[in-house]
Amino acid sequence: MTPQEFRVNCRSESFTSHTSGICPGYAQANLIVVPKRLATDFENLCLRNPVPCPLLAKTINETTLDKPIINHDFNITTDIPKYTIYRHGNLIGEKLNIKQEWSQDYVGFLLGCSFSFENALIQNGLTPRNVITGTNVSMYTTTKLLDNSGVFVHCPYVVSMRPYRPKDVEKIRQITGEFLKTHGEPIDWGFDGMERLGIKDLSKPDFGDPVDIEDDEIPVFWGCGVTPQAAVLSVGAKYDEIFMGHAPGHMLVLDITEQETKRLF
Amino acid sequence: MTPQEFRVNCRSESFTSHTSGICPGYAQANLIVVPKRLATDFENLCLRNPVPCPLLAKTINETTLDKPIINHDFNITTDIPKYTIYRHGNLIGEKLNIKQEWSQDYVGFLLGCSFSFENALIQNGLTPRNVITGTNVSMYTTTKLLDNSGVFVHCPYVVSMRPYRPKDVEKIRQITGEFLKTHGEPIDWGFDGMERLGIKDLSKPDFGDPVDIEDDEIPVFWGCGVTPQAAVLSVGAKYDEIFMGHAPGHMLVLDITEQETKRLF
Repeated sequence: MTPQEFRVNCRSESFTSHTSGICPGYAQANLIVVPKRLATDFENLCLRNPVPCPLLAKTINETTLDKPIINHDFNITTDIPKYTIYRHGNLIGEKLNIKQEWSQDYVGFLLGCSFSFENALIQNGLTPRNVITGTNVSMYTTTKLLDNSGVFVHCPYVVSMRPYRPKDVEKIRQITGEFLKTHGEPIDWGFDGMERLGIKDLSKPDFGDPVDIEDDEIPVFWGCGVTPQAAVLSVGAKYDEIFMGHAPGHMLVLDITEQETKRLF
Repeated sequence: MTPQEFRVNCRSESFTSHTSGICPGYAQANLIVVPKRLATDFENLCLRNPVPCPLLAKTINETTLDKPIINHDFNITTDIPKYTIYRHGNLIGEKLNIKQEWSQDYVGFLLGCSFSFENALIQNGLTPRNVITGTNVSMYTTTKLLDNSGVFVHCPYVVSMRPYRPKDVEKIRQITGEFLKTHGEPIDWGFDGMERLGIKDLSKPDFGDPVDIEDDEIPVFWGCGVTPQAAVLSVGAKYDEIFMGHAPGHMLVLDITEQETKRLF
């Protein structure tokens, strides 16, 4: 199935599940929809913090993006299998489309996701444990702050964590470092790295599921796409407009490949 | 005088002084020259940390850049009024050109400098104190770390500080925030911000000169171009090749204006 065929299935609501394993080799993206009056601040937040907030493209209108990551027929309001709606920082509903909610007063932002570098790790025999166990990756809010942008002030940097043996860290850095537009290489590792990031207890992730760390392993930390979501939700609590996004794991499948995301634009 | 005419004066070594106030309205750039084998790691360090390390362009060869920030006749080895040479992390000399030192085994990186946003602050009646006193801006090594890239691991984020009254902070954020390619808006402010950045004593800057902070003022902190220089020098200590740069304050004058640097590429 091509990405275009898959998006048509989402549009007709015949596909409504998560997108893990869909259209192998093609890149997928997170969606964050913000009111237009916050769009410049949010875009600059991404440009200033590209590792946790890797901006791939934004909408010009509901069928047009500013970057050629989707070449075919496209509609932001229908082509994702499931959407989430937030108001005042809280989830208020899940929908199969956002045709009613979308208007020209919104801008949608597409951000890179870690599926790309996870697939590269799998292909190199370094499968992340969360893939093996079929659980969500462990994520932690750190004491590191994003560089501010407009209304987005003092937003925390969220990291994902995958355990590995110390001897594999350099290889892991090389493999994932190539994916500059999808978080790239780890930002820190080891129990000293955990301390530098202000993480108190690895067994209690702030998002996702806990994962076992064996005696011969250390935690390895990457920038995480929950960072911009958390920033938007914390700021969104102060506004009356709704905010929207993809439902967790239910991504937009793009027409570009994972390889092509390595050095976009 | 046009930037091109000015660069010709540098090339003939008839101009060898600092570039503050030269070709008003035109942007100026910092130069960092690294051995080619470290160039990808350094470029990615900049791409991952664009606020303290705002990459404008890199050399393809000594007379060609990869981005159109100089449209006229140009030579990286002669067109800056004064250069510095480093070996093993130490300054070993200053030169009026680097014709002897340069080879195809080096890549030069041009980075945005804070002159652009300082001029915008001056034009808006918010002249930084270091400009009034004619001293170098105060700079501090923070406990915040850059996101790693290859050999550049655990490099500290260096900030510049200018004192302002709290009531002016929002205006300052707006004015400097437009200069996305030259550090943009402050990354923190206030005495609580100083604590978040791990700065112990404002009267003892790690680089530059101290500056008085009046009773009704707070410190305001920006990403600083000393960050990539410090990263390169700390890593350079481990290599036998020389590293090169512009002498402090002796910048490359570009053919693009300060306004054009606001949203480059």
